[in-house]
Amino acid sequence: MSQPLAEAERVARLRLARADRIGPVTFRELLQRFGSAETALERVPDLIRRGGSAGYTLPSPGSIEAELAAGDRRGARLLVLGDAAYPPMLAAVDPPPPVLWALGDVALLSREAVGLVGARIASAGGQRIARGLAQQLGEAGFVVVSGLARGIDAAAHAGSLETGTVAVLGGGVDDVYPSDNADLYSQIAARGCVVSESPMGARAQAKDFPRRNRIISGLSRGVVVIEAELRSGSLITARLAAEQGRDVFAVPGSPLDPRSRGPNDLLRNGAILCEGIDDIRRAFETLRTLREPPSDDFGAAPDDIDPQLVERVAALLSPVPTPRDELARATGAPIADIAAALLELSLMGRASLLPGGLAST
Amino acid sequence: MSQPLAEAERVARLRLARADRIGPVTFRELLQRFGSAETALERVPDLIRRGGSAGYTLPSPGSIEAELAAGDRRGARLLVLGDAAYPPMLAAVDPPPPVLWALGDVALLSREAVGLVGARIASAGGQRIARGLAQQLGEAGFVVVSGLARGIDAAAHAGSLETGTVAVLGGGVDDVYPSDNADLYSQIAARGCVVSESPMGARAQAKDFPRRNRIISGLSRGVVVIEAELRSGSLITARLAAEQGRDVFAVPGSPLDPRSRGPNDLLRNGAILCEGIDDIRRAFETLRTLREPPSDDFGAAPDDIDPQLVERVAALLSPVPTPRDELARATGAPIADIAAALLELSLMGRASLLPGGLAST
Repeated sequence: MSQPLAEAERVARLRLARADRIGPVTFRELLQRFGSAETALERVPDLIRRGGSAGYTLPSPGSIEAELAAGDRRGARLLVLGDAAYPPMLAAVDPPPPVLWALGDVALLSREAVGLVGARIASAGGQRIARGLAQQLGEAGFVVVSGLARGIDAAAHAGSLETGTVAVLGGGVDDVYPSDNADLYSQIAARGCVVSESPMGARAQAKDFPRRNRIISGLSRGVVVIEAELRSGSLITARLAAEQGRDVFAVPGSPLDPRSRGPNDLLRNGAILCEGIDDIRRAFETLRTLREPPSDDFGAAPDDIDPQLVERVAALLSPVPTPRDELARATGAPIADIAAALLELSLMGRASLLPGGLAST
Repeated sequence: MSQPLAEAERVARLRLARADRIGPVTFRELLQRFGSAETALERVPDLIRRGGSAGYTLPSPGSIEAELAAGDRRGARLLVLGDAAYPPMLAAVDPPPPVLWALGDVALLSREAVGLVGARIASAGGQRIARGLAQQLGEAGFVVVSGLARGIDAAAHAGSLETGTVAVLGGGVDDVYPSDNADLYSQIAARGCVVSESPMGARAQAKDFPRRNRIISGLSRGVVVIEAELRSGSLITARLAAEQGRDVFAVPGSPLDPRSRGPNDLLRNGAILCEGIDDIRRAFETLRTLREPPSDDFGAAPDDIDPQLVERVAALLSPVPTPRDELARATGAPIADIAAALLELSLMGRASLLPGGLAST
């Protein structure tokens, strides 16, 4: 996936990514099945209508052109999955975000990175630790990734402005949020990189933050949590990092401060204790295998799937996620056919494709 | 070892414990070999003289009477290994201290206990944590064991005065050290228990503290470290606790405070994170087997060991600790004979008996 993509295919991938019913798992499956977004766009409406959704339409070419023009005006760059410039660590996530907008130095997205996240209402000490660790990481050649929130995030960006900092936003890359960080945002856009999965112009909403957090961890080889309450966004980022096979670090803190609960609880559950960059270096030097995303290379699926197989697969699905290889065993069909059948069922709204090669009703 | 011992045997055990060349390992071996300290005292001078130490003498009966009289005057109680009142958790340590002096409520020594140790120059927060945790432990029915030092130790004792606190001293139980804690010492002697392995009247010396620390952990099911610098006595206690098969807990702290280094480093090396009593309860509820000390029950050794076997065992020893069963295999002799031969060699000054059934030159 590292040769440059033709511009028409890049635009097609943006359009496919913005289509209803096409989440990141389905996006990747469609590319796998049809080889290109251009072909997928030709086939998708038909597949979806088979499921009975007569009124289904793709996003209009005009709306996609408008998004591209908005990006151009702001000087943002579109990165689509499969592009040479798409961040390789993020491509290894299951499923990767289909498209990203980036403002600033996109080369930072391909360098080895560490995420720093934590409380918005952080202590002075916590902010000092975040700034200091970001500086140490920068001096050691790591890019620092965070979420441009108040507190720990802002301190992490401030500490790594000189050496390489990436801010991942919930809204569009032109949505400056929170406004307190407007100055920091401008500096990162000028000297670092601002990234988002959301369309240009989108305002950040609560539902965007878990998606944003999975990009922070997805760009990073490891994520460090500094001050976080239990049930906070930072702990969601830590969980996503672990699911992505990335290292989770936690900076310990006194039990007298409720902001220590999050990192201390992570430590209790196996996170790596982090007092400074030495702990991060040591973990990275330890030989380990990143969790591989499930391979989608099952060979070519037939052009048209036997409708009987599609129905047999549908009958085997339940609300409990089922692995594709189990469906292949149960039906005696090759796994490529199972993947194609599941894709059709998902476009008909009769199956949900889940990360890890799982599917459910 | 739980029937009451005759007074003459108790006195003999004190005398054997105070004899030159008889450390805790040799003490236990002598009791095993000869069944009583009274018999051991009859045989020891002869065994030692065989090694060429013509001038060897046991402590005079007068010196032992003087120690007993000093204990009586202070109202202290002598606990000897094998006594019913000897603390059972401490008897399971390898090797257990042969004798202890105790002031106050000796029944506390047989209850389930947790050790709390930490920095002498502790932060206000650290002392608050120690006092609070000691209170929680007391309310939950645990005795709290510490070392009567300034800082964390003093706070731990203060928090558990009402519910049961044990102070283990480096000097004799009548050696009030440090003098700042004189008032606390009096309260513990009156309401808790003060314990020491040192003779009555002995002043604490630097070399006494590791021995003291092994009793703190030895009386406890687990040891909690709150604020400690690297290379501190508290970390020695933690290491001893781990060697004794006891749980090691560490209270995390901010990397900005150098007193967090010790506990954070323990966490890095597998200690159990402790923010409060729930972490201790959870660990104790987890089914686990305490490390058993090596059994000394090898059956009876012959009354007199073949001098040739003694020499063959001597020839097999080196500065590298060797297990007794390896010596048994190498010589073809029963393990009881090996133990007896090693004991003789140790009394001659030609072998060192080590914990875990090991011996070296």
